[in-house]
Amino acid sequence: MISESTIQAVRDFTAERDWERYHTPENLAKSIMIEGAELLECYQWTPQSPTLDDEHVREELADVLTYCIMMADRLGVDMDEIILAKLEKTKRKYPAKLMRENPEAAQERHWAARGEMA
Amino acid sequence: MISESTIQAVRDFTAERDWERYHTPENLAKSIMIEGAELLECYQWTPQSPTLDDEHVREELADVLTYCIMMADRLGVDMDEIILAKLEKTKRKYPAKLMRENPEAAQERHWAARGEMA
Amino acid sequence: MISESTIQAVRDFTAERDWERYHTPENLAKSIMIEGAELLECYQWTPQSPTLDDEHVREELADVLTYCIMMADRLGVDMDEIILAKLEKTKRKYPAKLMRENPEAAQERHWAARGEMA
Amino acid sequence: MISESTIQAVRDFTAERDWERYHTPENLAKSIMIEGAELLECYQWTPQSPTLDDEHVREELADVLTYCIMMADRLGVDMDEIILAKLEKTKRKYPAKLMRENPEAAQERHWAARGEMA
Repeated sequence: MISESTIQAVRDFTAERDWERYHTPENLAKSIMIEGAELLECYQWTPQSPTLDDEHVREELADVLTYCIMMADRLGVDMDEIILAKLEKTKRKYPAKLMRENPEAAQERHWAARGEMA
Repeated sequence: MISESTIQAVRDFTAERDWERYHTPENLAKSIMIEGAELLECYQWTPQSPTLDDEHVREELADVLTYCIMMADRLGVDMDEIILAKLEKTKRKYPAKLMRENPEAAQERHWAARGEMA
Repeated sequence: MISESTIQAVRDFTAERDWERYHTPENLAKSIMIEGAELLECYQWTPQSPTLDDEHVREELADVLTYCIMMADRLGVDMDEIILAKLEKTKRKYPAKLMRENPEAAQERHWAARGEMA
Repeated sequence: MISESTIQAVRDFTAERDWERYHTPENLAKSIMIEGAELLECYQWTPQSPTLDDEHVREELADVLTYCIMMADRLGVDMDEIILAKLEKTKRKYPAKLMRENPEAAQERHWAARGEMA
């Protein structure tokens, strides 16, 4: 889980350095991408992340999560709330029974929703 | 916060669709980038996300977080734990007092650590 | 421009290291994102890339382009051809006259095409 | 190749829509990531891009290249020049003979340069 005390620790970290002024939603969205790319880099040439120890993967995922916490905080939203709200929408888009019976339907629905196959 | 019940809801969502087989760490790392880009797209041309309502921004952030939850679950790690462990390391790299007194030092330390200014 | 001799230099670079086996379209797509993030990092906290010299920005853009060349080569496509074909499509989607007279229409068309405002 | 006439076509496309004002280096760096993610999406769950036709992959690669052309233009640099200059540097970092004889050395050099294994 991500507890309130962890969110507070992230908030304190930022405040102690006077870094709130840099944490606009735009800059945080860029930062999520920059850290996400470092996570992806662990799997750049092979699916198994061979030369990297697990510690490195965990640290990169932690970086992505930290910027997500900062962004949720900046937007004034509760992470539980937005995750569950979106999950409900995704459940309706990809009904469990249909997905199990016809796995190809997932891709079709995805691209149709993107307007790519319209 | 992100509570255990939200993590369980994400886990159930995946299991009900038989999608565990797609959720390799590599695929989840790609997915974090793909959703992160949709979040960044809200700020592609202007810092203020003008034509998009807040609902859209929240949904894209929720998507990034959902894939992060799936990845933490797949790696078998606790999010609180990895975030706090990395935060301790980052605190030592960017001491609060130095950052407040000499803001430029942050960028220098960042690029030095990346080996770019060595 | 990107001349045939540059493309050949990239091809030779790969062949001399026996790296063709790593250059699947999937790995190259990941690599474009990883290098693109390093380019974005130059603008992470400020629009003007303050602490970085232009040399760094140029090198990161060169990295993105190099992976694009490798991907075009792997897909067996001519870059001029695919760029011009897509440009024709984009021109029809965003007619010049309409864009100049009604700049907001660009965003509306973009999100409508993405299925987000449908 | 990417010929001067293609670069000019991209330049005209932008000018005809009065879009130069949006094309700051920062916005173009974001745009490269956004289009790169759409390319990566073709390989999100499987390495072979199964449900998507090649046309789609080509169009996404074209989008990344188009933003790279715009960025090179904005920075006032020649793509041939920056690609070849960076390639020379990369050749020295990863000597061909060593790479062929000891493939693992590539990863070690990469992470060492990133300061991750220092």
